[in-house]
Amino acid sequence: MSEFNLIARYFTRPVRHSALTLGVGDDCALLQPRAGHELAISTDMLVEGRHFFSDADANALGHKALAVNLSDLAAMGAEPLAFTLALALPSIDENWLSAFSKGLFALADQHNIALIGGDTTKGPLTMSITVFGDIPTGQALRRSQAKVGDDIWVSGTLGDARLALSAMQGKLVLETHAFNQAAVHLHRPTPRIALGMALRDVAHAAIDISDGLLGDLQHVLKQSNVGATLHADDLPLGAILKSTQTTTVCHEFALNGGDDYELCFTAPTTKREAVHHAANIANTVVARIGQITAAREINILNAAGEALAISSNSYDHFKT
Amino acid sequence: MSEFNLIARYFTRPVRHSALTLGVGDDCALLQPRAGHELAISTDMLVEGRHFFSDADANALGHKALAVNLSDLAAMGAEPLAFTLALALPSIDENWLSAFSKGLFALADQHNIALIGGDTTKGPLTMSITVFGDIPTGQALRRSQAKVGDDIWVSGTLGDARLALSAMQGKLVLETHAFNQAAVHLHRPTPRIALGMALRDVAHAAIDISDGLLGDLQHVLKQSNVGATLHADDLPLGAILKSTQTTTVCHEFALNGGDDYELCFTAPTTKREAVHHAANIANTVVARIGQITAAREINILNAAGEALAISSNSYDHFKT
Repeated sequence: MSEFNLIARYFTRPVRHSALTLGVGDDCALLQPRAGHELAISTDMLVEGRHFFSDADANALGHKALAVNLSDLAAMGAEPLAFTLALALPSIDENWLSAFSKGLFALADQHNIALIGGDTTKGPLTMSITVFGDIPTGQALRRSQAKVGDDIWVSGTLGDARLALSAMQGKLVLETHAFNQAAVHLHRPTPRIALGMALRDVAHAAIDISDGLLGDLQHVLKQSNVGATLHADDLPLGAILKSTQTTTVCHEFALNGGDDYELCFTAPTTKREAVHHAANIANTVVARIGQITAAREINILNAAGEALAISSNSYDHFKT
Repeated sequence: MSEFNLIARYFTRPVRHSALTLGVGDDCALLQPRAGHELAISTDMLVEGRHFFSDADANALGHKALAVNLSDLAAMGAEPLAFTLALALPSIDENWLSAFSKGLFALADQHNIALIGGDTTKGPLTMSITVFGDIPTGQALRRSQAKVGDDIWVSGTLGDARLALSAMQGKLVLETHAFNQAAVHLHRPTPRIALGMALRDVAHAAIDISDGLLGDLQHVLKQSNVGATLHADDLPLGAILKSTQTTTVCHEFALNGGDDYELCFTAPTTKREAVHHAANIANTVVARIGQITAAREINILNAAGEALAISSNSYDHFKT
């Protein structure tokens, strides 16, 4: 199969979205955000051996490659429109390609978005996706807008992705059924698109938790020139994490786990009802876990109000 | 150096473009095409050992990674606005990063475009760039719009990039001075942005020649349901190619060379003056090399009008 046949067979589909004038097959795609809207753009790259193991399920990989990008749109409150895919493959494996594209397009179809362009080349397995969404001008949820006194919220549950990864790395043991449940969070994260859109008029700041809650929250705090107090007992622990690990491990995985792809956002205390309403619309659970403070530091308190000594351990690809 | 310091030091600069609301540092960048304009989007991935040798000059690589993407905007007639960069690096080499980012931003500055987002990860050296440009709605130069009777034009010269590559592969020998001159075409291609924009109201169809003239022209012919006659003696040969190789090699490299990043475009015969005017505005040479025909085939004729037996040998990353 040639490169062009590969693209035609696995990655070319009719373009239906009203914002798209031209999809795959020319030098560029053409896209027109709606009037009064800005375009939100994000890009993420996944590399074999770094972001996934060489025996990773191809269908799940297709899902995850797009999901981690959509999660960035969610964190801005943007509505997904389209994406491009650059794919380096060691060889043409039709079973792999078929499963990968099925996983990719199943998630794309959930959000009614089109693959509008890309590049395919031979090389170590690497996938780089760029996503496009639009949002009414000025309504994007930025990291820099957290205010002192805001509640801090988080969607979904935390830590099961890290739990599954730790089991895969042989650092702990889980029963098969428990592992499979936790691994869904690692392999098939749900981008919180509907929640992000519902929070446009409600939240001040938002970020997606891909590197761990503490590390990602620090980006918000730094850009907003504020600090935070978190209540460890209010963290929404993953079900498997909670039922299998000690409190210390639960806190560590929930705060520094990574790969959660949930939204952390801040909103004024006057908007608590509105946040719950947005969560209902989006059919997503949310938990209130702390407050934005003036002191530029993060304090983590237990139920007795005592400070816990947990520091950020955000993932750094180049840390030795 | 951490991943975040790396991004701050080498890839974060102030955003000045009026179309950009928000650059690097949030979950997404925000971009607003001008009213009455569409956004043109293209993505290309370069992989070590595939698109460049492991000892490739980092500054030239920064230039080329962006240039090959800008060339796709040029082929649509779009004006560049911004780009994203996903970069996998085997390790942090500050000399390499400094040179790469200098080459990248020198070309970005020529076109007044901003790096608005990206991703950095550890992995086999791979760079994936997505570029954004805008174009008045409906004026894009599409592959599907070539008409029977159109002239076929090409910008610049052809074949010196392939000549330099052949020398690097040891397939032929060039004197140092000649090699260096030819290698500029391979390592530092000039995206024909100004020409593409000047051709908006003039050309019918356009494509950039990255895989070889014949192979890329065939995309135009296929999408336009037409054929072509080319005059081999009218091909604008690279200066080093012409002065060092036989006519047969000259034709082969000009027609099937690849890596030229020139524009091939079609325009009605009534627009010959307008094409030359556009070329003058863009300070770019153009050559008229053939005509679009109704028969769905490519005929290549010599000066005597005899057919030459040269078939397309377009580069396919997965051909064995």
